[in-house]
Amino acid sequence: MKIIIAGAGAMGSRFGLMLHQANNEVILIDGWQDHIDAINNNGLQANFDGEMVTESLEIYHQDDVSSIDFNADLVILFTKAMQLDSMMQSIQNMVGKNTKVLCLLNGIGHEDVIKNYVPLSNILLGNTMWTAGIEAPGKVKLFGNGSIDLQNLGADGQEAAEEVVAVLSEAKLNAKYSANILSSIYRKGCVNGTMNGLCTILDSNMADFGETDAADQIVEQIVSEFAAVAAMENADINVPEVLAQIKSCYNRETIGLHHPSMYQDLIINNRLTEIDYINGAIARKGKEYGIPTPYCSFLTKLVHAKEQVLAAV
Amino acid sequence: MKIIIAGAGAMGSRFGLMLHQANNEVILIDGWQDHIDAINNNGLQANFDGEMVTESLEIYHQDDVSSIDFNADLVILFTKAMQLDSMMQSIQNMVGKNTKVLCLLNGIGHEDVIKNYVPLSNILLGNTMWTAGIEAPGKVKLFGNGSIDLQNLGADGQEAAEEVVAVLSEAKLNAKYSANILSSIYRKGCVNGTMNGLCTILDSNMADFGETDAADQIVEQIVSEFAAVAAMENADINVPEVLAQIKSCYNRETIGLHHPSMYQDLIINNRLTEIDYINGAIARKGKEYGIPTPYCSFLTKLVHAKEQVLAAV
Repeated sequence: MKIIIAGAGAMGSRFGLMLHQANNEVILIDGWQDHIDAINNNGLQANFDGEMVTESLEIYHQDDVSSIDFNADLVILFTKAMQLDSMMQSIQNMVGKNTKVLCLLNGIGHEDVIKNYVPLSNILLGNTMWTAGIEAPGKVKLFGNGSIDLQNLGADGQEAAEEVVAVLSEAKLNAKYSANILSSIYRKGCVNGTMNGLCTILDSNMADFGETDAADQIVEQIVSEFAAVAAMENADINVPEVLAQIKSCYNRETIGLHHPSMYQDLIINNRLTEIDYINGAIARKGKEYGIPTPYCSFLTKLVHAKEQVLAAV
Repeated sequence: MKIIIAGAGAMGSRFGLMLHQANNEVILIDGWQDHIDAINNNGLQANFDGEMVTESLEIYHQDDVSSIDFNADLVILFTKAMQLDSMMQSIQNMVGKNTKVLCLLNGIGHEDVIKNYVPLSNILLGNTMWTAGIEAPGKVKLFGNGSIDLQNLGADGQEAAEEVVAVLSEAKLNAKYSANILSSIYRKGCVNGTMNGLCTILDSNMADFGETDAADQIVEQIVSEFAAVAAMENADINVPEVLAQIKSCYNRETIGLHHPSMYQDLIINNRLTEIDYINGAIARKGKEYGIPTPYCSFLTKLVHAKEQVLAAV
């Protein structure tokens, strides 16, 4: 298959590398020049479960792809949420009327951006449990196992989705077709929509937040807002199950002492957050559907205020 | 008049001193032993607009007043909000059926505590613009001018209220009768209910918060919740006026670079906050009146979570 990895950070590099090794024709597109230069000069270098691997992969800056002749069968989107729209613009000429576009970004509601560029019938949504890290430009660390669930967004796209599942699975990416991908996305959204914003605003790790008396009430209200919006899209959230999953984040023996990714973005690295694509998406959709989402709305505003107070970029 | 100052910190000391100088029979009651000892040993020492003043004032620990024979005409309450209930218990034997009780605490809804101990017809609510500071146990700094508005809470208490106004004014405390004290209390509550909690949660001064894009929307929502609850008690908040007053706090040339008192309590001094008597009071009353107050409720919970994350005491 001819595959574009649009957004070739840690996760995009993992997918690009594994799909390349499975004999697909892969090109990477990204916006980070140092990373692009390093891969062009030295190949993509991966510490792949302890083994050092170097692969020659084509990589282009997203500003330089308008003249490339590459009629992709599949685009896998792995940008940061706020860079999705500009990436979709950049790759327009490589997205034909049969190109499937698989969105694997974190967060909720990215289809609302993608469908401005791609017909609904070609959009696939996925949820991945793989992990990956960047060690330096051109160098990634790929440890452990993972999986992907995905589904067509349009009504009659299951066949195409199954085809993509097969290609990903052949590359050992453990893909499977999901009959209700939106439910998984909303479930993951509930975890991110509580831990990320709350630990960021409270300058707290997950365990310390989870042990406050207010934690349960705050979390239950936010999850109920996610569930109400999800229900409008026929996505079913099992609330007690999601609450149990969130509570497992408080465990000091496992991940409780960690700060979630948004905390690392804003508090540690002074970067803008993805709150608009988590709680902000629920607030926006809630407004469209006439569902009150005050906690998601307030938390989104607080995180944006904090970004400005800290002059994040 | 026989007057008890219940809560003899900085403001209580100011009122006690000025009422004593105007020949009232004043006793102070407090819970801070070092302060009590200092006043008993050396008198209350005040830097009173630059002049050093020492006055012998009776002061008692609130745990030691049950046997004191002092049938007060007036109790002026100046405790911290969370200490109000225990103070009311302590002074019960000195509060007779004709004793007026004037509440000058910051915050909203204190009458709900006081009326467990005092008939409505004896309760007066006030709002004061005086300031005062503690320099050391027994030593206070009293600078500048101020005023008090007050009103009876019961329907037929205006005469008693006017009498208290006269006593306070004779002591140069610039008191006046207010026809709608609840409106002033709610207006002040709006300023405290935005600046205090928001700057505390965002770890920000007032100017930096005020200049964020989210500030206006957050502030307007919180003020609208205060206004809706106030309206149920026939207290009228002029919303545009209150919003303008809040915006004046953002001014870097005047007070914008300051952190509000709750920030100082929690972030600087690691003390529990009075959030339950500001936004928390609106959330509680909103529930009673069937009015949604999600921003006040969420902000209250966030501040409590922050107190626990910081192990404030």
